[in-house]
Amino acid sequence: MAQTRRQFLQQVGITGGAGVMYSTMSALGLTGVAETPAYAAPSRVELNGRGKHIVILGAGIAGLTSAYELLKAGYKVTLLEARNRPGGRNWTVRGGTVETDLAGNTQRATFSPGQYMNAGPARLPQHHVTLDYCRELGVAIEPFVNQNADAYLYREGTTALSNKPIRHRTAKADVYGYVAEMLAKATDQGALDGQLTGTDKQALIGFLSSFGSIGNKAAGFAYTGADGRRGYEIEPGAGMEGGTTAAPYALSDVFASGVGNYFSFEFGWDQAMMMFQPSGGMDRIPYAFEKAIGQEKIQYGAEVTGLRNTTAGVEVTYRSGTRTRIISADYAICTLPPHLAAKVPSNLPTPIIEALKYARPTNAGKIGIEYGRRWWEEDHRIYGGITNSNLDTVNTWYPSTGFHGKRGTVIGYYNTGANANVYGALTPAARLERALMQGTKIHGDVYGKDVKASFSVNWLGTKYSEGAWVGWPSQTDGIYARLLDATGNIYFAGDHLSHAIAWQHGAMVSARAAVTALHSRVTSR
Amino acid sequence: MAQTRRQFLQQVGITGGAGVMYSTMSALGLTGVAETPAYAAPSRVELNGRGKHIVILGAGIAGLTSAYELLKAGYKVTLLEARNRPGGRNWTVRGGTVETDLAGNTQRATFSPGQYMNAGPARLPQHHVTLDYCRELGVAIEPFVNQNADAYLYREGTTALSNKPIRHRTAKADVYGYVAEMLAKATDQGALDGQLTGTDKQALIGFLSSFGSIGNKAAGFAYTGADGRRGYEIEPGAGMEGGTTAAPYALSDVFASGVGNYFSFEFGWDQAMMMFQPSGGMDRIPYAFEKAIGQEKIQYGAEVTGLRNTTAGVEVTYRSGTRTRIISADYAICTLPPHLAAKVPSNLPTPIIEALKYARPTNAGKIGIEYGRRWWEEDHRIYGGITNSNLDTVNTWYPSTGFHGKRGTVIGYYNTGANANVYGALTPAARLERALMQGTKIHGDVYGKDVKASFSVNWLGTKYSEGAWVGWPSQTDGIYARLLDATGNIYFAGDHLSHAIAWQHGAMVSARAAVTALHSRVTSR
Repeated sequence: MAQTRRQFLQQVGITGGAGVMYSTMSALGLTGVAETPAYAAPSRVELNGRGKHIVILGAGIAGLTSAYELLKAGYKVTLLEARNRPGGRNWTVRGGTVETDLAGNTQRATFSPGQYMNAGPARLPQHHVTLDYCRELGVAIEPFVNQNADAYLYREGTTALSNKPIRHRTAKADVYGYVAEMLAKATDQGALDGQLTGTDKQALIGFLSSFGSIGNKAAGFAYTGADGRRGYEIEPGAGMEGGTTAAPYALSDVFASGVGNYFSFEFGWDQAMMMFQPSGGMDRIPYAFEKAIGQEKIQYGAEVTGLRNTTAGVEVTYRSGTRTRIISADYAICTLPPHLAAKVPSNLPTPIIEALKYARPTNAGKIGIEYGRRWWEEDHRIYGGITNSNLDTVNTWYPSTGFHGKRGTVIGYYNTGANANVYGALTPAARLERALMQGTKIHGDVYGKDVKASFSVNWLGTKYSEGAWVGWPSQTDGIYARLLDATGNIYFAGDHLSHAIAWQHGAMVSARAAVTALHSRVTSR
Repeated sequence: MAQTRRQFLQQVGITGGAGVMYSTMSALGLTGVAETPAYAAPSRVELNGRGKHIVILGAGIAGLTSAYELLKAGYKVTLLEARNRPGGRNWTVRGGTVETDLAGNTQRATFSPGQYMNAGPARLPQHHVTLDYCRELGVAIEPFVNQNADAYLYREGTTALSNKPIRHRTAKADVYGYVAEMLAKATDQGALDGQLTGTDKQALIGFLSSFGSIGNKAAGFAYTGADGRRGYEIEPGAGMEGGTTAAPYALSDVFASGVGNYFSFEFGWDQAMMMFQPSGGMDRIPYAFEKAIGQEKIQYGAEVTGLRNTTAGVEVTYRSGTRTRIISADYAICTLPPHLAAKVPSNLPTPIIEALKYARPTNAGKIGIEYGRRWWEEDHRIYGGITNSNLDTVNTWYPSTGFHGKRGTVIGYYNTGANANVYGALTPAARLERALMQGTKIHGDVYGKDVKASFSVNWLGTKYSEGAWVGWPSQTDGIYARLLDATGNIYFAGDHLSHAIAWQHGAMVSARAAVTALHSRVTSR
């Protein structure tokens, strides 16, 4: 296209939606900010009366995003959703939530008013388009505490640092301190002279000095832990109390313990602070989409039982209560989990069915435990964040909201794979019992006391999902790619068709890609 | 005291105040948590009708804390405060705030409703007793964003990385990547064999592999920056978009740039995340104290002009409007800044006056800039946090509240010492002009546009403070220590009499120490 940058900016300014100006600025190199590929929402001008009817299978995030974007341009949209709520895996459990899993366990959540757990996605990085939709849809956000120096690391085992909770800050100070000490020594002794100039060495040692809070050359670059960053036995206080520190753990013990292996999490593209969550629960997003789309366009309790390309468009069969219904439309966007979509009777060609089956579901589990007192704040001085361990609970999340309130809901485990399966195989009551037993190892007896309510999810055993997310043996061998183009009049979308799997961002950008392709096809005719 | 642990816990449970159970548990080694020295508020039972009248000089945080704790036990309290508000340096500037500084500059803040700047203290670590008072007084808190991977580092200069904004995450990935690569190489090549066993080496290299996201031995432990933690040119997205990364900056350039020297800030005892702020402004704390104490006990607009020990107690002279008044009481707690207290006519002995004068005021400056659009979120994808630079603005703070709102107030500079003096010497209009010029270097032209309001503070030129905080040439040479005991019937308190100077925590624990000493004296008679 022979258009000027200015013309292009005007165009996307006219037709754009959430994040589009930002994406575009980035794509043009105006801000130097990494971002999603530029996206321009379909426009009514382009559609020019050629409004088609699109049936969307699934009102999870991909389905809702697809519907919302298509409606901007004047398409007719029908969403079919098997559950009685929008969001799919975006699911906030509150008091009154009832769910029966595939093993037949029925749970009725009894969380107090204001208490909840996000059973599925629970955190949003700053750069995900999910935040753009929050802004566009008016969903209030607040920080999600993904990193807290005062949360614990706990390693069951036989090392000198095993079987006791260690603050993140303490482990980090010792690990970084020793790393700095060793590298400064090696550098000073010339071990890296092949790689470093004299100027490099000086700059590096300068950095290491602050990074590890180590002594100078005369002090052997020694790490002593005396500056307080690892914590105090008595905090600096009034009068003469300058703070009392303990000696660092021994170097061999620190590295043998494995505590350092948790730190890289917080450097991750998708996990580095700041992170956010919708105030009041993650499902504020799907409910805001539902409101923007119009509830009347969503058929809840509609289990898809057939999907066919026809000469005129598509035909979708679904069960609604005891009835079977058929809906015809010009196009379909199928956002069902691929391994479940593969089981729907259809006239999709075998290579497409094979591609859908190529996805491998992963399990994840979570338990929400409501306590009558926020003991993690009052007794342990932990305000949000994550304690990591090598117990089968893996991650304990302290709530990022309601600080200083009367009650609070801890995520007692967030685990995946084999650890999730261990809990998934138990009854909800037994999951709680086991989670309390494990959490007590880290937090002491308080962990098992004053439990007011609990609810657990085992995603592999959750109807209509049967997995937390999927993995692909490969995304480059051509099989996955079969699902990226339309099959006849049927498009596919979902986080599984992205490189941000298990994130709402992935579902959203995949939906945008499907909408863009569909709209381009309609308007080019 | 021959009492059991249980008896002691019961005792402090009865008499305690904010944080006391926690502190006590810690002091007894029950939680292993570093904490302030245990504190038990004075009790009515102990006082047993021996209520004395205490006059408190200054209704800053130390004065308010002193009054609040003394009132718990039934003391009669009078607070004298020169300003017309509580809090002292805890000062939140909103639309309508008017202030004339010592140079004669009068500013009238025109911030929009809901917009504000905390001109003094602005952040609270999890372990400070300030949070206990927030809980006890019902002051709602929310996270303060003290660390953000997507904020910038900016170094004006002549290195290859100078004069362009670099994301914290990018600088960190490169610095940590190269550190890991170098230390892995040196370790593998035996440079540290004098310090490390074979087991240590294996564990260390395992750690470095995740810490720096480096290649294995066969790959020369090379850092390539390909894992995305340093950011993307194109973010992972739909379909086949796996994300496009750029090559890391060269090792020599990274260390020459000095960007790594900012990281240790986030490891600090007082600065590591999570950090908090009162929702709605830091002055929610002094106003909550004022409410709990009773406004009628605070004499505003009362400038202390004399302080005397008498045979019966103390006598304080103060100016209230055009009148001079004298108040007599049993004891006084003087919380005035020490360098200002030294100038008050008094009969304090010379060594005490010398000790007060021994404090050295430090300057700090801040400017709040309200923008009509939250361009840092929309264009730069920065949701709160701090951009650091070697410009004289030093720190730029993006707001930690009101995310996705219409407007927002950036702290355009938070600087100290010589940098603060540069801005302090300017008129408020010239400070804004200079701050915008500097901020534009980092953020582009958007920084200078759509400014709705601004207000700046120069603490050295601020009446009744004349400094942001003080430093002591020494806290161990005996001079500082003269102020820790009562001089006759006069006690001293304030953050300057603590090892948490410039923090409200320091003022609070110092006030508690003064109250404890005073109460012990009264009840032992």
